[in-house]
Amino acid sequence: MLHHLLENVRSQSPLVHCITNYVTVNDCANILLACGASPIMADDPEEAADITAICNALVVNIGTLNQHTIPSMSLAGKKANELGHPVVLDPVGAGASPLRTNTAHALLDSVRFSVIRGNISEIKALALGNTAAKGVDADAADAVDAGNLDTVVAFAREFARKSGAVIAITGAIDIIADAGRVCLIRNGHSMMSKITGTGCMLSALTAAYVAANPENVFHATVAAVCAMGLCGERAHARLSGFDGNATYRSYIIDEIFRLSGSILEAGANYEIR
Amino acid sequence: MLHHLLENVRSQSPLVHCITNYVTVNDCANILLACGASPIMADDPEEAADITAICNALVVNIGTLNQHTIPSMSLAGKKANELGHPVVLDPVGAGASPLRTNTAHALLDSVRFSVIRGNISEIKALALGNTAAKGVDADAADAVDAGNLDTVVAFAREFARKSGAVIAITGAIDIIADAGRVCLIRNGHSMMSKITGTGCMLSALTAAYVAANPENVFHATVAAVCAMGLCGERAHARLSGFDGNATYRSYIIDEIFRLSGSILEAGANYEIR
Amino acid sequence: MLHHLLENVRSQSPLVHCITNYVTVNDCANILLACGASPIMADDPEEAADITAICNALVVNIGTLNQHTIPSMSLAGKKANELGHPVVLDPVGAGASPLRTNTAHALLDSVRFSVIRGNISEIKALALGNTAAKGVDADAADAVDAGNLDTVVAFAREFARKSGAVIAITGAIDIIADAGRVCLIRNGHSMMSKITGTGCMLSALTAAYVAANPENVFHATVAAVCAMGLCGERAHARLSGFDGNATYRSYIIDEIFRLSGSILEAGANYEIR
Repeated sequence: MLHHLLENVRSQSPLVHCITNYVTVNDCANILLACGASPIMADDPEEAADITAICNALVVNIGTLNQHTIPSMSLAGKKANELGHPVVLDPVGAGASPLRTNTAHALLDSVRFSVIRGNISEIKALALGNTAAKGVDADAADAVDAGNLDTVVAFAREFARKSGAVIAITGAIDIIADAGRVCLIRNGHSMMSKITGTGCMLSALTAAYVAANPENVFHATVAAVCAMGLCGERAHARLSGFDGNATYRSYIIDEIFRLSGSILEAGANYEIR
Repeated sequence: MLHHLLENVRSQSPLVHCITNYVTVNDCANILLACGASPIMADDPEEAADITAICNALVVNIGTLNQHTIPSMSLAGKKANELGHPVVLDPVGAGASPLRTNTAHALLDSVRFSVIRGNISEIKALALGNTAAKGVDADAADAVDAGNLDTVVAFAREFARKSGAVIAITGAIDIIADAGRVCLIRNGHSMMSKITGTGCMLSALTAAYVAANPENVFHATVAAVCAMGLCGERAHARLSGFDGNATYRSYIIDEIFRLSGSILEAGANYEIR
Repeated sequence: MLHHLLENVRSQSPLVHCITNYVTVNDCANILLACGASPIMADDPEEAADITAICNALVVNIGTLNQHTIPSMSLAGKKANELGHPVVLDPVGAGASPLRTNTAHALLDSVRFSVIRGNISEIKALALGNTAAKGVDADAADAVDAGNLDTVVAFAREFARKSGAVIAITGAIDIIADAGRVCLIRNGHSMMSKITGTGCMLSALTAAYVAANPENVFHATVAAVCAMGLCGERAHARLSGFDGNATYRSYIIDEIFRLSGSILEAGANYEIR
């Protein structure tokens, strides 16, 4: 199944509007090109809705939000909703400051998201108003493991039901949930957390997959998360003893560029419950 | 001839002021350093003209334009004109939103550009008010090929005459025109379109070449476009079966770093009509 | 001694708030992750102080300062002072425009910095009001060599005394001074000046080292500067004849990722006077 979802991205080459942070924006653009999509970044309120109108999907990433781009996120989100385009929210650092938490909540109130992707601390901040996030990384106290997996799955499902979005909680084990289904994904490598932007890149990738598979948002999200994790594994296998996180970053994007449907199908490690 | 133009960049090390988008800004800075120039990025209206005053050239790239940087583009452009510094315009995404199209037109009205470099859709949007651009990439319907080459050449020449700038329309075949001459360049590799920022980098490179060869804007632009295309070819030849667009990006900048006048002279594939 | 300072970074994983330029921000984030720290970038006045409050150190880098981020620098700096967090200033391009010089001076007046790191021209602009900087690079006329080393050391010491900060003047020879001590460092490679952001990355790295070693700001700065220079040497040794500045950039970050306390101890080339 996954290989069709990937091939639809390559054949349709969706144009993805990113309102995203300036830290990882270049990687987001390159990973979109790598997967077969095209990026356009535009965050001024004067053009946010116009740019969304010519695109196939929108990603809203609050990683370096500011007073001038927050209105753009809302304007673009509403226009995308109006046109039926998928919208992905990446609530980077939600919980780390009132501005981030409040902005994320305001976006949830005004925009209908297809997918919300974040780490467990960010998703908790969104769903529960929890504000204990350690910056932009998940708090150790929130880590998902065998002991609390069922609890987190129930939480994800409940937030999916309430928000109407597919919820993607990514970490050592990734949890993808909509109101009725859940998927656990065990791809990826721990060294991915030593690169800035793996989460941001995955959110952009998810938007491309969902744009090319609009009738199948849940599985498209699963495919994107598997693709990112699998490419993290394959890129890690390619590292020499001299390489570190900078080379690893390039190799992950390279692997997304080279990824075929059959490699994805063979390497994806997921379980739908 | 080209080798002197390149060597002038290395010997004079021009300082290039970039008002540019935050997607590809790091690559623009590194390619300027690679070719022997020095970059400075500054986009606040309070300092835009001051920074231009200490530089040798200015690039205005509207890739992530906003209400706060648009006045800076105009202020810096006018100051550069006043001081006789070359100014390069990269109208990223002109045609994709009224803000971009209108800003590009307003800049054309208020600033005298030495070179305008874009893809065919962007240049059409500038010259004809066409607004059918597909995001930041050229529209397939606009593609330049053997069938319409003469028409596009005549269009480029006419726009050069009207704007007073050297026009560089880059794509599979690059067309460089001023009012009297035209040059067709057949360097480059199709995979360059799978990296974000090859156009932005080329605009920055062009500013460096023109700054170091101010008496010869047309040929300096030809040299910069040949250099970028040739380095795209050479970097592609270096790719292994494991590499993708991220490694390719680094290799292109590496090739610009290593490019000598004699390699450029030998590899440039251009025809002046 | 240096190896303990490095190991403290790895074991404590300090969270570093960066208000920094958009040119090199991705490299700053990746080098912080490489050394064992965690980055968070946040520059809106509404959250600058809140984000600083959850971090262990702050870096203020004025490389692409603007009217909206200048107040954030001051708000975050004051909050960090209030909480006793170390603050590093990187006065990129001070001297290149009145906005930069004046902003740097205003920050010196309102915030107490632990470390100020810049090239000789930037530090002169700060200490003496000199405004002859050639963009963001040191002016050749300011170069530190055997002939003027004693003069520059005395200048650094005097500025350290007046500002209360450790002063790090980096270049071919790096000079680290506080009111009583001075350290000369002879690590590094001249090709580092052909990469954008080596200075910015070093400032971020310094913040991580100082955050993990708050009782020992002087030596922590020495360790960070030695680490960056040594990794520049080691990365250079790894370059093949095909590599240029883009690959070099990745290799430097890779080396910081791989750097151990014993490699640092063995390779650091410093002399405390």
